[in-house]
Order: sequence, then C-alpha cells, then structure tokens
Amino acid sequence: MTQRTNTEPHHSGIDPRYKPLPTTFVSSRRLAAQLGVDLTIATETFQHTGSFKFRGAFNTAAHTDAQHIIAASSGNFGQALACACQLFRKRCTIVMPLDSTAVKVAAVRSYGATVEFIDVRRTPRAVRVRELLDESPGSVQAFPSDGELMLAGNESLGAEIVADPRNFDVVVVPIGGGGVGVGCIRAVERSGSKMKVVGVEPHAANDVVRSFRSGERFVWDSEPVTIADGVRTLGISVANWEVLKRGLATMMEVADETIIEATRMAFLLANLKVEPTGALALATLLEHGKSFTGLRVCCVATGGNVSAEQYARILSPVLS
Amino acid sequence: MTQRTNTEPHHSGIDPRYKPLPTTFVSSRRLAAQLGVDLTIATETFQHTGSFKFRGAFNTAAHTDAQHIIAASSGNFGQALACACQLFRKRCTIVMPLDSTAVKVAAVRSYGATVEFIDVRRTPRAVRVRELLDESPGSVQAFPSDGELMLAGNESLGAEIVADPRNFDVVVVPIGGGGVGVGCIRAVERSGSKMKVVGVEPHAANDVVRSFRSGERFVWDSEPVTIADGVRTLGISVANWEVLKRGLATMMEVADETIIEATRMAFLLANLKVEPTGALALATLLEHGKSFTGLRVCCVATGGNVSAEQYARILSPVLS
Repeated sequence: MTQRTNTEPHHSGIDPRYKPLPTTFVSSRRLAAQLGVDLTIATETFQHTGSFKFRGAFNTAAHTDAQHIIAASSGNFGQALACACQLFRKRCTIVMPLDSTAVKVAAVRSYGATVEFIDVRRTPRAVRVRELLDESPGSVQAFPSDGELMLAGNESLGAEIVADPRNFDVVVVPIGGGGVGVGCIRAVERSGSKMKVVGVEPHAANDVVRSFRSGERFVWDSEPVTIADGVRTLGISVANWEVLKRGLATMMEVADETIIEATRMAFLLANLKVEPTGALALATLLEHGKSFTGLRVCCVATGGNVSAEQYARILSPVLS
Repeated sequence: MTQRTNTEPHHSGIDPRYKPLPTTFVSSRRLAAQLGVDLTIATETFQHTGSFKFRGAFNTAAHTDAQHIIAASSGNFGQALACACQLFRKRCTIVMPLDSTAVKVAAVRSYGATVEFIDVRRTPRAVRVRELLDESPGSVQAFPSDGELMLAGNESLGAEIVADPRNFDVVVVPIGGGGVGVGCIRAVERSGSKMKVVGVEPHAANDVVRSFRSGERFVWDSEPVTIADGVRTLGISVANWEVLKRGLATMMEVADETIIEATRMAFLLANLKVEPTGALALATLLEHGKSFTGLRVCCVATGGNVSAEQYARILSPVLS
C-alpha cells in the first residue's frame, strides 16, 4: 500500500499532453464569502474525459498486459477507461444500462470503445461482464474504485492537494466506491501531512455513514437513488472500507436539494461547471459550514460531465 | 509603451490571494479533435470577478491617488472595478443602464460599490458620469479598455500566454474596446516572441474589421447588437487602433449563431462555462478552422459571467 506504482517505463511513447493533467485549483471570493469558509476547489472537471477517473484508468491501460479490458460503467469510469485504452491501443468494452443517456454513450464511443447494452432489470451487470470475459480469451475486467492501479491514480490527486502551498487543513471528498477518499488518505499517510480527510454522501446513499455508525461495512440491496449519480454504488469494497475506517476524520451527509443548490452556486459564484456528484463537497460546506470555520478547506470537484438538459434544469430554480 | 508599470510598492498590504490570479490553461482532446486544431484555452473565467478586466482594474485602484473612482459599465468592468476599489478601500460608483440584469447589479453591489442607474435613451452614459465627477470633488473616471493601468493589466495576461511552455504560434482574442488585443501585442513586442495575435469580432460589431479594410478607424453611431455583449462598443480609441493596426496579424469575424454554438461546445466538450463574449475565439476556430491547421493555437476566454437564464437558453438548441 505504501509503495507508489512506477508508471514511467510503460508509457514513454505517449504524447505528454495525453497523460493525466495536474488538478486545477480554483478559488472564488464570492463563493467563499457566501459559505463563510476559507475555500479552494480542486477541480477535476478539466482532467482528460472530465473526471478524476482518468488518472487510474490511465494507469490501468498502461500496466495491464491484457489487450482487451472490459468494465461495467454508466458514468465517468467508462469514458476514462475508453480514452486510456485508445491511447495504449487496447480493445475496450463498456457494459452500460439500456437507459444510459445518449451523451454518455457517445462519449464512450468517441474513444473507440465498444458499448454493450444490458437491461439491468433482467441481466445484472456482473453477469454480462462475465459472459464477455469468457467470449474474449485473455481479456480482463477493470473496476472503477478498486485495485492498485486505480488507487495509485487517485493518490496522485491526493498528493497534489497535500503538496499545494495553501497548506489545507482539511479536504472534503465525495464517497461512492471510496476510491478518491482512499487516494487522499494514502497521500496524507505517505507524506506525513496533518491534513484531515472528510467524506460526504447523499442522505439517500449513505452506506459509509451507516458503516461508520455501526462499525461494520454496510451494503445496499439495490442501487440507491440520488441526483449524485456518480455515488450510486451498492457499497464499498472490504479493502477500501479498511482504509476509510482508519483514515477518514469523519463522514457527513447532505440532502439532494443541497447538492442541486451547490451545483448552481458553483455556476453563479465560481463560473465552474460541475456535475451533481462533483458538487457534493461544496454541498457539505452549505449544510455543515460551521464545522469548517477557521480552517483552510479544499473541496474536490470530482467531475463535470452533466448533460445540457440536466444542467439547464438545475440552473432553473423553478424546475429543479 | 514598453515600460511595465511597477505595481509592487502600492499594494504590499493586500492579501496575495486577492491579487490578480494567473490565467488557467485548459485543454480538451475532444474539443480539439472536433475543431481539428491543436488548441489550448487560456480562460479568465476563474480570475477574480470572472473576467480579465480585474487585472487592469486592480492596477487602477492600486495606483490612482483619487479616493473615488467612477465608471460607466454594464458588464465585467463594473464588477472588476468595484471589487478592486473595495480591496483598496476606495469609493466606487458604477453607472449602469436601467435595464441591466439583476445579477450584474447584484455583483457590483456585492463589492460595496454604488450603482447609478440611467435611462440610456434619455441620458448618455458620459453625461451622467460627468455630472457625478462634478458632484464628487477629487473623483476620477476609469475606462474599461484604455489607459496605461488597464493596458498593463491586460499585458500581464499576454505575458503569461507568451511564456507558456506550449509555445503557441497564435493567440486569438475578442476585440471590443481592443484592450486585450493591445495587451497581447505589447507582451509579444516586449518579449520578442514570434506568436501572432489574431483579433475577432461578431459580424454585427465588426468596426475593427472595417477599420482594417479601409485603413481608417471606424466608429458606430449607435451601439451594435450582438449576443457577445462584452464587445458592444461604438469603436476603439485612437491609441488602441494604432497598436492593433501595427500588431494584429489579421482580423476575423463570426456569426452570432457560431458564438452560441461555441459556448455550447465549451460546455459539452471542455466542461468550461464561458459567457458568449468569452466564446468568440472558439467561434473563430469553428468558422475559420482551416486558417489554423498545423498551428499551436491559444484561444483567450475573456470571461464567464453569463446569467443562469441566458446560459440555460444557450444549452437548449431548440431555443437558441
């Protein structure tokens, strides 16, 4: 866990512009004043494919010997893996629900990946992935929030936040599969930084909040429903739970209404386009601002891939 | 002209976080591929007050002896000057048209400035500014695109673009009052860079295009109408015209429809929120892409302050 994956030798032929980009730090005096918090946003919305997932996906494509990588994803991981596989000239198949939005399907396909649709009410994603693995000898499966290659990618984001000269007291991160939380905790532990890592979930998808309360990993029976579609996970892996249990300062939860308001505030006061999942950390400051008084806070905006239709609805207070 | 304004001694007491921020360079593989151009965006949307105008406004507030600064502006300059004056504890009055949008008025007031409304059909802005100057002894007027303090601010943006290791062949900038164009030309001339500066205007506000064609500075009788409200200027000053005439590689023009499409593309393919004026340079690549083949291009996104209502309309292809 404490040994950084050395990724250099495997992608020396890649155009350096196509490697993972450093995160973009954004600060807005108006947004900070409105929230009453000393705030900086580490936004991964300008990362390749528009989310932090590209960091781990790049590692995965670079260091997986198999020539065909298969994954189930209806969101940012699918795009990220498709893009990374294209860079390394590997085949990529993404299993997506039949009702995925057209922009997400188009994004995956724009990187040359194959999209396999499933009716999730009839076929579990894992079953279809298993079939595809069997049909394609030598292919392997990749997971969005687990495995050393993904987590090393997430850790690179945490390392940039830890190293920032603003010297943050606390970083707030959304918890879905737990990957970005684990990445930040690893960066803190490796550097010996005193920065605290706070996780956040929507009320409706608060499995890690429940896990913290009981001390035992909680897993949903069916996918929770929240506007933050990037954290609609059944639960986190045993391995990620062990790291979060050890390394998180605390878990907080927010209402979907607050997530919508935070998405709108990022637009209005910081000129920042984020997807609802990417606004989870900002929503935490809206709902739990007093907990952060006097602290230098970094909020991670994990991604920006929201459709024009959904975003226009979010911007119109009457409709959302 | 070739002597940089030394701004250090006057604002040593200012929190460094409140000084002008370096520009944010954003690149998107999907946007570049769609446009067929090797493209980087230098976005000033995350500058304080959301536009490049803050650079010059900061200089103006820092180096103007008068304790009260008055300006006419319905847009980004008003916000920028109000914010800068607040930092330096100076009075600020912004003359705005009666029909200014509520968010723009609120932004100016949020920085403690006084807003003076005028009915532009009855009272020219210049007349009302003159009255206010007479009423407030010792007050001075500031202009959005002219004067050494504003232009030195714009030059600081040009200098960051010139110094970027991507080594751009060409920078594309919107031309309204000509300030950002002059700033880039000054940076190129001071550094000895070979980077070309290309200006762009909407068809409906093409006064500098006309000036280039005839060789003589063209000025409108009444404010031109275009969705790019940041370049709705009657014309540029004699001083700025002399610099543009000497330093611009060429002028291009684009349709308002292309500006809308470019604003939408920035959202969809680069996760970047820009106001229509901020999309002018991208629109140039959409309409005149062949002129930029094989070149490393930097597009300046001058600002991001578009209202939620207008932005939602732009994102909905049916409505815009």
